[in-house]
Amino acid sequence: MTPVERAQMAMILEVTAYPKPGNVDRCHDYEGTRLEHFLASAILARPALEKAAGCSGGIGEILREAVRLTTAHGGGNTHFGAFILLIPLLRGGDIPGAVRAVQDSTVEDAVSFYQAFSLTKVRMLPGDPLDVADPHALDLIRDRRMTLFDVMDHSKEHDMVAREWVNGFRLTRKAADQLHRAGCGRDGIVGTFLRLLSTEIDTFIVKEHGPLVAEEVKQRAAGILDGRGDLGAFDSECIARGINPGSTADIIIAAIYTALGEGWAWDCSRKE
Amino acid sequence: MTPVERAQMAMILEVTAYPKPGNVDRCHDYEGTRLEHFLASAILARPALEKAAGCSGGIGEILREAVRLTTAHGGGNTHFGAFILLIPLLRGGDIPGAVRAVQDSTVEDAVSFYQAFSLTKVRMLPGDPLDVADPHALDLIRDRRMTLFDVMDHSKEHDMVAREWVNGFRLTRKAADQLHRAGCGRDGIVGTFLRLLSTEIDTFIVKEHGPLVAEEVKQRAAGILDGRGDLGAFDSECIARGINPGSTADIIIAAIYTALGEGWAWDCSRKE
Repeated sequence: MTPVERAQMAMILEVTAYPKPGNVDRCHDYEGTRLEHFLASAILARPALEKAAGCSGGIGEILREAVRLTTAHGGGNTHFGAFILLIPLLRGGDIPGAVRAVQDSTVEDAVSFYQAFSLTKVRMLPGDPLDVADPHALDLIRDRRMTLFDVMDHSKEHDMVAREWVNGFRLTRKAADQLHRAGCGRDGIVGTFLRLLSTEIDTFIVKEHGPLVAEEVKQRAAGILDGRGDLGAFDSECIARGINPGSTADIIIAAIYTALGEGWAWDCSRKE
Repeated sequence: MTPVERAQMAMILEVTAYPKPGNVDRCHDYEGTRLEHFLASAILARPALEKAAGCSGGIGEILREAVRLTTAHGGGNTHFGAFILLIPLLRGGDIPGAVRAVQDSTVEDAVSFYQAFSLTKVRMLPGDPLDVADPHALDLIRDRRMTLFDVMDHSKEHDMVAREWVNGFRLTRKAADQLHRAGCGRDGIVGTFLRLLSTEIDTFIVKEHGPLVAEEVKQRAAGILDGRGDLGAFDSECIARGINPGSTADIIIAAIYTALGEGWAWDCSRKE
């Protein structure tokens, strides 16, 4: 499997794994964003993923291309956060390489990132002078000579995906290790997803529903792992309330990419 | 969308469409062959699909490569029949081009096809001197100077996929036309699948369960379209009995590929 195929497989395996509380999965769609949108995104992002695995093009520019390729469908943002992690991982090959790749990011990468951002409906923090919706944000980036790494550093408090850039892909590493422990295939992914959800506040939930709901989801996930509460019922409740741990899913995708490269078997019927 | 992406999308959209009587779909796996195997096959076949869309390599050799790339996982045969249709369609670009491509096939293509066949557990007709399990089949092919087109002509009576090669991709065309009528997205695919099942005997069911069961499936599908019988219950019954209209699925994949190239919208939220 090539690195690009590993990235595509990671996107496909994450979205089809189930039951995952609140997210689009094999058994759940959201009204505007369906399973097919996620699968199509994994197929259609390939040219950008190939560039990331090659030597040409900056990370920001490739990110913008990945978003452009995958918002051609009507399903809205599917893998923006995942691309923020996968593109440096592909550029660097593995986590240590990705850490070097993000440190090398430039002001131009930051500008392209903002252009990518504006193709999606994803928001940073309202009121933040660097919010993508702020018309002066790009001027500020250029004036301050902020690299994409600096932007992520700025966002790290409120965004667990941005935080991966500045802390050495800590949760990606942690979740990949957990995948190795949890074992092959779909059940390994679901177990790893739940464990990450039970130990980390999902910042996407914080943005959409506030910190109390995010804390509740974390506690409930921990409870299910302790044998208190039913995963299926929790999933249904999250779906009904529109609670979608999207950033956790992004990190799981990066973790599957990493673990596949380390020999983790996506297919239990044939260890790889 | 490039032709190769259309082929990959066709594979992904077909397998995730549901409910489809008896086949692996979004809600059903078979014991050894799961949704992930089909999705992985769509990702991992890409190098072979690229060759088919390019100018290099014979159809038989490319078919062998596609099967080799997609039997690396443990899920057994997933898309062998689909590749038999998609590879000429990619080589020719559309149905008229595919008709020319299959007529140009060679003895070497036939030999490669037999080698591909032997990588799968798919059987031709037991007792047929051209059965892949017959150790003399390859000698016979070479002695008689049979091209891959000739092999398909030999198999046409008992195999609806082979029949497509010699009748101008008749069912592929018919199902693509039906897709345009049935409309966008998942529901269009399910409707087209049922209609094809209701008018054509699935030869894969004949091989596995005999002609009576195949005829029963056809009648039941027709009944559901006429408002007699419930699709979900029929699906469950087929799954329980192991009745899997796999050849119909292969033709639907070829039809989706064709219809996508003619403007059919896989995504109802944004017509393409």
